[in-house]
Amino acid sequence: MAAPTKPLALTLGEPAGIGPDITIAAWLRRRELGLPAFYLRGDEAFIARRAKTLGKGLGADIAIASVSPGETEAAFAGALPVVATGEHATAEPGKPDASSAPAALASIREAVADVRAGHASAVVTNPIAKSVLYRAGFRHPGHTEFLAELAEADGRVPQPVMMLWSPRLAVVPVTIHVSLRDALTQLTSDLIVSTVHIVATELKSRFGIARPRIAISGLNPHAGEDGSLGHEEQTVIAPALKVLRNDGIDARGPLPADTMFHEAARTSYDCAVCMYHDQALIPIKTVAFDDAVNVTLGLPFIRTSPDHGTAFDIAGTGKANPASLIAALKLASRMAAANS
Amino acid sequence: MAAPTKPLALTLGEPAGIGPDITIAAWLRRRELGLPAFYLRGDEAFIARRAKTLGKGLGADIAIASVSPGETEAAFAGALPVVATGEHATAEPGKPDASSAPAALASIREAVADVRAGHASAVVTNPIAKSVLYRAGFRHPGHTEFLAELAEADGRVPQPVMMLWSPRLAVVPVTIHVSLRDALTQLTSDLIVSTVHIVATELKSRFGIARPRIAISGLNPHAGEDGSLGHEEQTVIAPALKVLRNDGIDARGPLPADTMFHEAARTSYDCAVCMYHDQALIPIKTVAFDDAVNVTLGLPFIRTSPDHGTAFDIAGTGKANPASLIAALKLASRMAAANS
Repeated sequence: MAAPTKPLALTLGEPAGIGPDITIAAWLRRRELGLPAFYLRGDEAFIARRAKTLGKGLGADIAIASVSPGETEAAFAGALPVVATGEHATAEPGKPDASSAPAALASIREAVADVRAGHASAVVTNPIAKSVLYRAGFRHPGHTEFLAELAEADGRVPQPVMMLWSPRLAVVPVTIHVSLRDALTQLTSDLIVSTVHIVATELKSRFGIARPRIAISGLNPHAGEDGSLGHEEQTVIAPALKVLRNDGIDARGPLPADTMFHEAARTSYDCAVCMYHDQALIPIKTVAFDDAVNVTLGLPFIRTSPDHGTAFDIAGTGKANPASLIAALKLASRMAAANS
Repeated sequence: MAAPTKPLALTLGEPAGIGPDITIAAWLRRRELGLPAFYLRGDEAFIARRAKTLGKGLGADIAIASVSPGETEAAFAGALPVVATGEHATAEPGKPDASSAPAALASIREAVADVRAGHASAVVTNPIAKSVLYRAGFRHPGHTEFLAELAEADGRVPQPVMMLWSPRLAVVPVTIHVSLRDALTQLTSDLIVSTVHIVATELKSRFGIARPRIAISGLNPHAGEDGSLGHEEQTVIAPALKVLRNDGIDARGPLPADTMFHEAARTSYDCAVCMYHDQALIPIKTVAFDDAVNVTLGLPFIRTSPDHGTAFDIAGTGKANPASLIAALKLASRMAAANS
């Protein structure tokens, strides 16, 4: 059985986005859905204002408790616990302002500090707006790379691996946010090997799967059809598979990507490792659009995130769907229990 | 209401494959499923032998009627109608022999001749084995290109367009059976424009959709994210969309491919046109693995096909699933009715 774990540290995300809305919506459904205890790293006054904006039944009437990191679990049942970061947010819904970047970044830093100090069992992140952060001087490609840097130890920044997880399918793209042309260049046997090692290790340690079965896609149509539709299966992917199998990992492939993702095929593996972004993201967003969770593997702590953006156009309206955040909270709790 | 149409001409496919098996299985379920009348272009003695091999209840007891092209409809209720091609097949299940290629090719030629002569309303093709045909000197890349050549008129070979269709999703890849690297090279604005024109025209004429809504994918992750993840959306796809809209076609895009295929998104268009094989085939095989139909657009006649191969390993065993052939027969009939 899963051991009881500490609460989850939830970041604010971009204050002008839907992060605050879905945080409040998830807390309102905590009993109904049996959600694990979580707290927001943010600004109590800002959250109270957003709650009022959302209106009656959607947040206006909730209790918010400003607490210290050690008091969050006790507070969760009766109020949304908020642990102050010291950075105040002032942005109106849909309108990021000068307070947005400092507030979002402080929340991430403090949530990571909490989990490393033992106050929280995992970090769950609300969506940020990269363009807002870039304008404020943020120099990381994205959320995940920032977290990897915060996780630096002994001068070594870990390799973060992006997994999209749902109860129906888990996928990992080997190359991620680059053009398709650059993906072809970046794809190497070494990158496949290091990625799959991280996937296999964490499926064991954090998902409790004793012998993970990992399906590896081809790059080309029909996985290259014996070289007649491309050679990377033979020159890049097969050599990686050989190394992985020698290392004792149950890695199958290269498999034709188009026949990997139907319902019967999905029961034959625990995670599909794909060669590029859309090859992994198309199937999971097709079968789990609302409740897929973004999980970062390879970090010394657990991090999950809803699989959507800031949705500025509906922030503050009460229309944001908290399903993906709820799934992210549940999965983080499950991973923390497997890990404990 | 749909007008009554002529029977469908079904080709033999590779005799050693599952084509004969699924043909017999479909005919056995003709009443139960209300299937449109069809006949096989092939060799009566060969089919009778395979029917015996399949065994009791699976074919051994069926009636087979050797008929002329004009007699197929009347025969269909009581027997599987076979119109002889003159080429005899002798291959055992799973073991293509010297008779395979001539028998498969004659069946395709005669079925096309039937539909052009007005004896049949559409061609439905069973799976062929390209390697078997190549060894016999076949010089076309595949089934579809051979059909396009048979459709040559006034010295012009039409551009065939591959659509995968199911009741839940229809997709068209602009580049098809080439490596991902070659797909990047082959993708041009002209190819997108000519492909989408054919799709739009036939969605009207053969699917009865008065104003087809066509969703066009991006090539890169997030459709290039304003050029930061690749430039083809701006340099290749957007110019094609401009031409198409000027031509009065309802073409939307370029859309991020990963969010095009979930259930709600699919209701917003009639067909998704994608930039490469897996981008189109992953989603349809994920949501319609058993009953997707391969449709060739751009030909002067209707052609559908089951979306699977010869499955030599199960030929003659009775294990082959006729679902995709049944879907291909139904769709061909529906298209013929819309066209009539």
